[in-house]
Amino acid sequence: MSEEPAQTARLKDVAARAGVSSTTASLILNDKTDAFPEQTVRRVKDAARQLGYRPNRLAQSLRRQRSHSIGLISDDIASTPFAGAMIRGAQEAAWKAGHVLLLIDTEGEADVERAALETMLDRKVDGLVYARMYHQVLEPPHPIGNVPLVMLDARAPDNSVSSVVPDESGGTRSAIEHLVESGHTRIGFVQTLDEVQAASERLAAFRTTLADAGLPGDDAPIAYDPLLPGSTSADVVNMLDGPDRPTAIFCFNDLTAHNVYKVARQLGHRIPQDLSVVGFDNQETVAPWLDPGLTTVQLPHYEMGRWAVEHLEQIIAGEADEPVQFRMPCPLVIRDSVALPSEERRGGNTMRRKEDDE
Amino acid sequence: MSEEPAQTARLKDVAARAGVSSTTASLILNDKTDAFPEQTVRRVKDAARQLGYRPNRLAQSLRRQRSHSIGLISDDIASTPFAGAMIRGAQEAAWKAGHVLLLIDTEGEADVERAALETMLDRKVDGLVYARMYHQVLEPPHPIGNVPLVMLDARAPDNSVSSVVPDESGGTRSAIEHLVESGHTRIGFVQTLDEVQAASERLAAFRTTLADAGLPGDDAPIAYDPLLPGSTSADVVNMLDGPDRPTAIFCFNDLTAHNVYKVARQLGHRIPQDLSVVGFDNQETVAPWLDPGLTTVQLPHYEMGRWAVEHLEQIIAGEADEPVQFRMPCPLVIRDSVALPSEERRGGNTMRRKEDDE
Repeated sequence: MSEEPAQTARLKDVAARAGVSSTTASLILNDKTDAFPEQTVRRVKDAARQLGYRPNRLAQSLRRQRSHSIGLISDDIASTPFAGAMIRGAQEAAWKAGHVLLLIDTEGEADVERAALETMLDRKVDGLVYARMYHQVLEPPHPIGNVPLVMLDARAPDNSVSSVVPDESGGTRSAIEHLVESGHTRIGFVQTLDEVQAASERLAAFRTTLADAGLPGDDAPIAYDPLLPGSTSADVVNMLDGPDRPTAIFCFNDLTAHNVYKVARQLGHRIPQDLSVVGFDNQETVAPWLDPGLTTVQLPHYEMGRWAVEHLEQIIAGEADEPVQFRMPCPLVIRDSVALPSEERRGGNTMRRKEDDE
Repeated sequence: MSEEPAQTARLKDVAARAGVSSTTASLILNDKTDAFPEQTVRRVKDAARQLGYRPNRLAQSLRRQRSHSIGLISDDIASTPFAGAMIRGAQEAAWKAGHVLLLIDTEGEADVERAALETMLDRKVDGLVYARMYHQVLEPPHPIGNVPLVMLDARAPDNSVSSVVPDESGGTRSAIEHLVESGHTRIGFVQTLDEVQAASERLAAFRTTLADAGLPGDDAPIAYDPLLPGSTSADVVNMLDGPDRPTAIFCFNDLTAHNVYKVARQLGHRIPQDLSVVGFDNQETVAPWLDPGLTTVQLPHYEMGRWAVEHLEQIIAGEADEPVQFRMPCPLVIRDSVALPSEERRGGNTMRRKEDDE
């Protein structure tokens, strides 16, 4: 045979060349050859060699040590569009290490969580991931004996357990620096009313970054939005309505930004010409669909899921000494909602200020 | 003791009354009493009885038969915000029957799917749910021997396996009937370019429902939208721009509706005064956040997940004879995007038509 191996040969190509079904080809290539005539086995193996077929690496890992598992306990996967990405990242890392992922969602019930833990421990999981669906600081589960544990999108108050959470500060810093570099000096923050970890960390980083840029951090305008669909916060309207209004708004998340878009439209401000807006989350059903597309900070759910299990596998392998608190970078995703503040508006405001002084 | 049992007593109430930790209370109430002094055991059990404490039913189920499991194979959970609701519905039904749910997502790779099946069968799952993340018609997995199987958001072309999919026709019918009852006679459809099962079933039901209402179904205006964020389909602009334009639009899904909102805004049509819009999906980060809130058809992911496992449990228990093909109802969720067509527009169009005839 003189053919060159194709880089992209798939299982069905092998099966077609050997004249067998994909199932037969899969079984034979995974050395389950007992049920087949020797001739068929040879034909499939020849076809695989000729086509340069390589079995999918994830599939191989999944087959390797299939009696071993890692448990992932989540609290409310139905509440967030990010759950799938987190689970997928965790699963891929588990497979690479030859582990299957056993998932139990507790629906936020403490009693169910206890039962989930008992179930996982009875099944002798090799390790546990304790996940939250948004960034939280909370006590690790107990008792879990000597089972290795990593917290995902959550961390223990005393840092006693390895954890991965989003780098809220770093993400906020890149958003605010982007606005400052675009020429903005009056930057406001539309904040959630929920007292969550992300809210306090983003607010602190918002202030620090402004101060580092020589702008007033502690006096920067803050408006609160209850994050309800269909209702416009009077606080947000007030902030966007005055003559000295900010030229740029940093929003707690993409849905807050959607509300800011609505208020801006009602007030006749064009985005980005009259008002620049940055969000947080990069929700794929929200940020790119807004008009204009929203510049926002990415929450790295897939990456956090993967890190949690990769680190857990290190603990299981005895390669991790001390608990690690990892903050996953949150990259800025640039779309079309940020522009230079218009000369007119800057001029107009400067004029007005002088008049006030007179 | 003369106290009345409280209906809402929780584990922590019992623990507080008995003066122990919640963990201790949980262990004792689950008959893991070995490690505790007899006095503590009695104190916890007394407190539970006095408060009328009932352990969480799901937690009890989860503890009951924890060696038994059901496998759920999904294809791409990171691709959709609906995955969590589907898994949660499946998990709740599994727990009620004393099964733990073992989840493997194949990331859409055929070879990984084979490995997932082998893993599930090696672990002797009591049944399998074969799930897709959007409505598909496809061959069931094989070989799986005698393991009971239900397809979720997917069905076999020959109906040989029990399945649950959304009732696309019923959902479409309620949307169109709502528009007709609101007084609309010129109703257009903004359709996806993807050739998916939902698209063909919704289009067929759109035409049939119009015809049943005495309106032209086959000649109703259809525009195609590539469903890309940030780009406006010229086809949609054309449909919404003419003098005889539809007064109401049925959209393939909520993101299509978001694009229709943008086009309407560009053309100066107010929703719902000038144009009524109905979507499909009821995505919680989209439909209620649009301005005005989008009337849309709910995709019943939680309910489908629950049905799939409930039916699987019936098969496992020997209570199901023939394969069942179930279409889960898709209820209409009414918000603010539909109104009576304005008298002006109806009058204007009638006038214009008469002039054309002259």
